[in-house]
Amino acid sequence: MRTAVRVAVDAMGGDRGPAEVVAGALQAASPELEPVVFGSAELDTGGLEHVQTTQVIGMDDKPADAIRSKPDSSLLRACQAVAAGRADAVVSTGNTGALLGACLVELRRLPGVRRPAIAVPLPAERGPSVLLDSGANADARPEHLLQFAHMGAVFAEEILGVAHPEVRLLSIGEEPAKGNQLTIEAHELLRRSELHFAGNVESRHLLAGAADVVVCDGFTGNVCLKLLEGTIGTLLGALRSEIATDLRGKVGGLLIRPAARRLRTRLDPDTYGGAYLLGLRGLAVIAHGNASREAVANAVRLAARGVRHRVVERLAERLPGPPGGARGSVVASAGSLTQTPK
Amino acid sequence: MRTAVRVAVDAMGGDRGPAEVVAGALQAASPELEPVVFGSAELDTGGLEHVQTTQVIGMDDKPADAIRSKPDSSLLRACQAVAAGRADAVVSTGNTGALLGACLVELRRLPGVRRPAIAVPLPAERGPSVLLDSGANADARPEHLLQFAHMGAVFAEEILGVAHPEVRLLSIGEEPAKGNQLTIEAHELLRRSELHFAGNVESRHLLAGAADVVVCDGFTGNVCLKLLEGTIGTLLGALRSEIATDLRGKVGGLLIRPAARRLRTRLDPDTYGGAYLLGLRGLAVIAHGNASREAVANAVRLAARGVRHRVVERLAERLPGPPGGARGSVVASAGSLTQTPK
Repeated sequence: MRTAVRVAVDAMGGDRGPAEVVAGALQAASPELEPVVFGSAELDTGGLEHVQTTQVIGMDDKPADAIRSKPDSSLLRACQAVAAGRADAVVSTGNTGALLGACLVELRRLPGVRRPAIAVPLPAERGPSVLLDSGANADARPEHLLQFAHMGAVFAEEILGVAHPEVRLLSIGEEPAKGNQLTIEAHELLRRSELHFAGNVESRHLLAGAADVVVCDGFTGNVCLKLLEGTIGTLLGALRSEIATDLRGKVGGLLIRPAARRLRTRLDPDTYGGAYLLGLRGLAVIAHGNASREAVANAVRLAARGVRHRVVERLAERLPGPPGGARGSVVASAGSLTQTPK
Repeated sequence: MRTAVRVAVDAMGGDRGPAEVVAGALQAASPELEPVVFGSAELDTGGLEHVQTTQVIGMDDKPADAIRSKPDSSLLRACQAVAAGRADAVVSTGNTGALLGACLVELRRLPGVRRPAIAVPLPAERGPSVLLDSGANADARPEHLLQFAHMGAVFAEEILGVAHPEVRLLSIGEEPAKGNQLTIEAHELLRRSELHFAGNVESRHLLAGAADVVVCDGFTGNVCLKLLEGTIGTLLGALRSEIATDLRGKVGGLLIRPAARRLRTRLDPDTYGGAYLLGLRGLAVIAHGNASREAVANAVRLAARGVRHRVVERLAERLPGPPGGARGSVVASAGSLTQTPK
């Protein structure tokens, strides 16, 4: 048995270029954590193990096409390393759809899992909160949401260290009957489950902290994530310009700068570095395409943490899968993939 | 022909009590605008015409039940006044579901309209933007979204004064194929329509200003509205507490107060006072349950503006209705109503 966790890092995907990703991997490296860099021969990996690859899957590549036509891409090769046991987890800052597709092909789903989900830890005011699905499945059925809830609960227990995670269903009213057909039926499934289900929650509470686990379909989750990110950015930007319109505001702005910086750090999506793709026979972490080296380092550590806490094994125990649970075809799933998880 | 626009105001619905609603109606009153107050006999309407009613529909009342069991409620009576031609529009700060249900029963849908929609003007950075449906229909089909787009375009032209309103579809990626089944099919319908359709838009751009008209199903719209509201509130609150942790921040906070206030005013949902229920044979405006007198006054003015610009007539011309367009039953529609539009 290896003592260090080995994390396969796809160096070619990020918007900031491979050097930034490699710098992040180097930052995360320790005697207990060995990043393995997948990328072109020219990369200087600063001593990290380097698997040379010749192809790159771009942000705008169509997932299904890219997976077929770029077998020697850093992204596919990194996933294959996990499937073959040469690495314990994979981290990519690249094309989310392609990563999900590659994981479905190379790692495959856990038995009984109908749909993998993207689990994003939100830096909410009252502490971290996991939002899932944040974009793996644009369309979902009630039984998928129930599985997402179970996966989110394992994530909250193992990664966030919450003993009996509270699960809530994202809807447009707190009453069970408020919502769309999907949430009304999912509410009933969640209510009858053994989860600590505390009912529906409205999106207005997401940033303050709605629950340990917030469950929704991938379309809604992705819309929420992008709206959160966009609103925080627009609002702080608007405040900055409003302040800059007179001298009084400018002086005030200088004085509150440390406080604003603390707030920014607290709400920074890079705090966790990335999101898990849950429901697979291996661990995958997707980082923001625009991730800084710090964010990449956090994503690599997040992946290692998942390995040490045996998240995949815990999920396999927890999700025995309903009888006759259809597993669908990979191509069908890859068709509805979304691009960026946050 | 009457020269003044008469707006029926349901005084009993708001969270702040009838006196606040009446104060708002009084503020909006002018020689061109005659509010008619519907509410209990004890109300002092300050000289405004007063239709006395004996029942009140509460925020927690189930819409369908309330409409059946409270025929003399201020909300129903106000809607009936519009149906009977004794008022030109109705404004309520009450139960959104009940208002929508009452409008469906009393005002009825315009010919060809499948589902009414709630149109909310967002105070976006680049100027107002209409988001619809913001919660009238939790589930929607692609052809509904196409109708919402037409209704939103009329709203933008008549109420916001935009000549050729740009319409976008809210989705999780800009490419036509990014989204769920609903948005992918709706995209195609919108693309083939005569509207100025500019493609998909992601939620991250909503507060900055995504388009003149942003179309989505009512579940997604309601989630977005509540997330915007909640995130703005949580973020400004968090900044305030972060600033208050030391003297430097406190002084800075005092200095930036006017700038912060200007920003708050700019992003205030009360700027427009309310949202239209579009697609009915009469005009209805729903205001926030917690609306201040200023917000109520703005909602009453918004209703009057809709009457003067003949929004209902413009919609009737614009929406000839697809052949065989099912009109459904009111009870079925009232079952999926949502509570608060923002």
